[in-house]
Amino acid sequence: MRFFSDNAAAACPEAMAALAAANRLDTAYDGDALSKRLDGAFSELFETDVRALWVATGTAANSLALAALCPPHGSIVCHRDAHIQNDECGAPEFYTHGAKLLLAEGEGAKLTPDSVAALLATVRDDVHQVQPAALSITNATEYGLVYTPDEVAALGELAKARRLGFHMDGARFANAVARLGCAPADLTWRAGIDALSFGFVKNGGMSAEMLVFFRPELAGATFYRRKRAGHLLSKGRYLAAQVLAMLEDDVWLRNARAANDSARALAEAAGGRLVLPVEANEVFLKVTPEEAAALRADGFDFYDWGPGEARLVTSWDSDPAHVEALAAAIRAL
Amino acid sequence: MRFFSDNAAAACPEAMAALAAANRLDTAYDGDALSKRLDGAFSELFETDVRALWVATGTAANSLALAALCPPHGSIVCHRDAHIQNDECGAPEFYTHGAKLLLAEGEGAKLTPDSVAALLATVRDDVHQVQPAALSITNATEYGLVYTPDEVAALGELAKARRLGFHMDGARFANAVARLGCAPADLTWRAGIDALSFGFVKNGGMSAEMLVFFRPELAGATFYRRKRAGHLLSKGRYLAAQVLAMLEDDVWLRNARAANDSARALAEAAGGRLVLPVEANEVFLKVTPEEAAALRADGFDFYDWGPGEARLVTSWDSDPAHVEALAAAIRAL
Amino acid sequence: MRFFSDNAAAACPEAMAALAAANRLDTAYDGDALSKRLDGAFSELFETDVRALWVATGTAANSLALAALCPPHGSIVCHRDAHIQNDECGAPEFYTHGAKLLLAEGEGAKLTPDSVAALLATVRDDVHQVQPAALSITNATEYGLVYTPDEVAALGELAKARRLGFHMDGARFANAVARLGCAPADLTWRAGIDALSFGFVKNGGMSAEMLVFFRPELAGATFYRRKRAGHLLSKGRYLAAQVLAMLEDDVWLRNARAANDSARALAEAAGGRLVLPVEANEVFLKVTPEEAAALRADGFDFYDWGPGEARLVTSWDSDPAHVEALAAAIRAL
Amino acid sequence: MRFFSDNAAAACPEAMAALAAANRLDTAYDGDALSKRLDGAFSELFETDVRALWVATGTAANSLALAALCPPHGSIVCHRDAHIQNDECGAPEFYTHGAKLLLAEGEGAKLTPDSVAALLATVRDDVHQVQPAALSITNATEYGLVYTPDEVAALGELAKARRLGFHMDGARFANAVARLGCAPADLTWRAGIDALSFGFVKNGGMSAEMLVFFRPELAGATFYRRKRAGHLLSKGRYLAAQVLAMLEDDVWLRNARAANDSARALAEAAGGRLVLPVEANEVFLKVTPEEAAALRADGFDFYDWGPGEARLVTSWDSDPAHVEALAAAIRAL
Repeated sequence: MRFFSDNAAAACPEAMAALAAANRLDTAYDGDALSKRLDGAFSELFETDVRALWVATGTAANSLALAALCPPHGSIVCHRDAHIQNDECGAPEFYTHGAKLLLAEGEGAKLTPDSVAALLATVRDDVHQVQPAALSITNATEYGLVYTPDEVAALGELAKARRLGFHMDGARFANAVARLGCAPADLTWRAGIDALSFGFVKNGGMSAEMLVFFRPELAGATFYRRKRAGHLLSKGRYLAAQVLAMLEDDVWLRNARAANDSARALAEAAGGRLVLPVEANEVFLKVTPEEAAALRADGFDFYDWGPGEARLVTSWDSDPAHVEALAAAIRAL
Repeated sequence: MRFFSDNAAAACPEAMAALAAANRLDTAYDGDALSKRLDGAFSELFETDVRALWVATGTAANSLALAALCPPHGSIVCHRDAHIQNDECGAPEFYTHGAKLLLAEGEGAKLTPDSVAALLATVRDDVHQVQPAALSITNATEYGLVYTPDEVAALGELAKARRLGFHMDGARFANAVARLGCAPADLTWRAGIDALSFGFVKNGGMSAEMLVFFRPELAGATFYRRKRAGHLLSKGRYLAAQVLAMLEDDVWLRNARAANDSARALAEAAGGRLVLPVEANEVFLKVTPEEAAALRADGFDFYDWGPGEARLVTSWDSDPAHVEALAAAIRAL
Repeated sequence: MRFFSDNAAAACPEAMAALAAANRLDTAYDGDALSKRLDGAFSELFETDVRALWVATGTAANSLALAALCPPHGSIVCHRDAHIQNDECGAPEFYTHGAKLLLAEGEGAKLTPDSVAALLATVRDDVHQVQPAALSITNATEYGLVYTPDEVAALGELAKARRLGFHMDGARFANAVARLGCAPADLTWRAGIDALSFGFVKNGGMSAEMLVFFRPELAGATFYRRKRAGHLLSKGRYLAAQVLAMLEDDVWLRNARAANDSARALAEAAGGRLVLPVEANEVFLKVTPEEAAALRADGFDFYDWGPGEARLVTSWDSDPAHVEALAAAIRAL
Repeated sequence: MRFFSDNAAAACPEAMAALAAANRLDTAYDGDALSKRLDGAFSELFETDVRALWVATGTAANSLALAALCPPHGSIVCHRDAHIQNDECGAPEFYTHGAKLLLAEGEGAKLTPDSVAALLATVRDDVHQVQPAALSITNATEYGLVYTPDEVAALGELAKARRLGFHMDGARFANAVARLGCAPADLTWRAGIDALSFGFVKNGGMSAEMLVFFRPELAGATFYRRKRAGHLLSKGRYLAAQVLAMLEDDVWLRNARAANDSARALAEAAGGRLVLPVEANEVFLKVTPEEAAALRADGFDFYDWGPGEARLVTSWDSDPAHVEALAAAIRAL
């Protein structure tokens, strides 16, 4: 009964069926019929003209986005606990050719205009320091919190005022939208986002993530950077197929809702043990080492998350029986 | 009737079945049961202890290999027509942080010890010039020629004498082995190869290529570089699954033989029109613009390849009827 | 009466005379007679076999040292207030091709084994995080404190245990040695230092800094990196000349003592206004904006350093009359 | 009697005097009074509004210029024998983060619109190839030929038509202008040049080269790149001083004329032995190994330049007696 990561989940039936359907000869790279539909499909979803590129990983999507927004001699403001800082082995530095990440504070890996402004105030405007060029937030955050459209917009205004490109790492964007019930546009470009890493893999995809540019002119160099990074897959149609299948009939939203619902069930069982509110599909729990061991002895698999805490992650395919069993086990601690 | 690239082919049934079989929860990244079997499977195939890493593209495999063999201030000797020089948008330069490619000559994109030595002789051994650190060949070459084990070994000796790391771009390694009927070991480490990009996608895979290090100590930093480049897919088990399925019962060899056989059929039809001998799955044909147009009018799709030449590529799934029809059309020119 | 930076000082007479003496035809780059004497001169000074390379700036020396000690996918532990983090516009990231700086805490920009160990403990040993590869300290620190040989050695032991290369930014190394009265060897390689940026410019040089490797094998690639970075000056003899002249008769130590003495005079005048002890040639003073304005009105030039603080820097050529006047003005506040 | 490189020459008296005059406290980096005069002085010289930055080497000037004109995923067209390709240890690749150099042909290291156009025609306009972004020529060339304003302008038109930034490596720009007697503006921006590396060191400077941007908006990021590369010297006033002194009273032109005159004297002596016309301060001579040995036995120092050729370089301070002696020795061969 695995709750250690939504990365470990299966691919959803719709994605698998799409792969089978795409399994025929077509033009290579992104010249195929499916890949060519992506700009249109995402422009429709976001109610504006976008450029939508597939890549194989969220790390690639994030790094390509940041490279589009920040020069090598610039810096990127993000949260101290951001995935781009802690979990990508320096991919942003690799893709940007050595830009610096500036680390801001905030509860639950969530930035606020105040925390960002405080950080920016420490940078001198002279040639001896790298100058801030981009702001990156994660929604839902690494701690399962969700930025509302208003919260994003407040940061977007700051970004605009300071001339910072604004990137959203949406590895769990679907979970955020599912939670908020808002239009994807409200959470992104209408709130000032320039580029979105739109995650599909954690949410039932097999191997495709999307990089969406809300300012089409930003996309130009990225086509070269993607190729140059080895991310222009020669049979790109299989990536497009998965993504298009998950857009159809809002599979992406349905999957995310399922994951969120499972997390909420665990949250209700956890009660006072919650470290943070549960707003997406991650549950952070206060547990003693003995309690963690007891849960593991009962067959539940999850990560410790610092001393006295555990992280439980649900996914689109979390087995309701497993969730129920885990909820019961938590109550019984 | 498409003959423009083996990149455009479908994934083979064995790969598709393996994806379906792998479609269940497992550990993320390369911690899953399938990925863990790769070192063993490739060590067995190559009859020596290797490290075998999946990536999503041949460009990534090539670039990671070259970054393991060449420092930023070094250079890589390759053929003027090499894929790494002409078709990867500078990926080797990106991954090596700016190493230089030195371009050697040779018929059919094939290097010889003489052409390599002649190039090396132009480099001064001083700090004002980047120093050669690696040699890279493509087998089968970009023009469908095949290096024999002896030919590779002759280059391998030169590489060893000059202290050059030795890389083989094996996007069509299977086609070369199928042609030669040799042991994979004979064509690689026994001939001095340090790192092999072992192609599966052109040969019936969907999205997995392998990077094989014959000197395991070379692999160390590559795990970090792969992650840093965004090539550590979170659901890596699907990549391992494809590859393992194609190793089983020599599917990879069977597929390559099928592609080679189709090419040979076209070669026989082409006769004196052949630009180069056909040794793998590519056929380069002398045709006038009018003849090319006539073939296209008959429904055959392919690339022009310089003035008065056309490139025909067969694949594992080339339809025998299409091949026969094309052969007939060529004869009828 | 300028006290804003030792960077602003003149070149000392010995350096100027050496430039004039070197003003004749000689072999270019570092092939001249003077440059060839550097390894020997610094090996003698440090009582061990070293490699000593001139460069034009401390930023270049620091960055080349760090590039020798840390791969692109590694990280460098330094103080949050380190010059390499705050004042070099990302030069370490440029030269290392995107390594990350990890920022540790400590009073007066001084690291301790505890603060470094605490930072290292936050890094997971997995491929998703850049792994620490180097430790860098500044001596004298950016706040004018001095590490003793024992303090360096304690950090050196930690570095060795964690397999970290150990770099000292010695932009004011002379001031540290002058203060401590120790052998240069005791403060460097005997305490575990692998590479030293040995500053001459702030101490009376015109345009030459030295990069000293205490493990000669580390220097190899640096010759290429230096050229590649545009730091192999074609008339390198003028750099060697300055440095050799300042080594002769311990001019470097005499200059540093003069600067330290001036700072001490200011420190005595400052009394309770001192933010930190004055151990080298920098004085950090608590002053109100009104007091700072008063000093400036009296003709003293210096930087504000955060709210309510001022930085006064003395140099080898600080005019005793100016120092005395400033001391009096501080007392009179 | 050394004729192996103008890099080996002394600094001229005007430069030395300027260093002495600048040897007083002033603001650090490029904030000093002398550095601030550079934009104006070069704007006057070039009769247009320019940005003029000092750096310590021509390699740095070239690389910073190229980084301003070419993205990492672009390429730079230059001659196969260009200094940026052969003598800078990959500095352009380092500064541009991995751009590619495309090598064109031409007698005497001189490009023509035809040779450039022929090379450009080999590049496919797709994402698999790096796209040409800049053109770089050397004037005078590495073989001592001089581009006339018309020749530069013809290349400039091509550059403009293909949207290529246009760089001139002017390590011996002074020699070219001295030869042509034209306005510096005619040889640069009026002919389409965007950025010029204006050499002073070979021409009597000690340690300062100038990077001149004829489109001021190109300079912006270069200030950061210069700092980041460790080329913002803290006592920059000494660099500015040399350069300003050499601009005054046309010292730079006078020095270059002297070097050219010496070369012309050698050329007249060489007669039919000349490999190429002598248009600046380099003489390429056909000599047998025995003849070369005989010249060396007579006390003349120079480089062999390929089989059967020797390179003789004169400089601003070539001793007339030495020149006369060498001319006589050549005649006597």
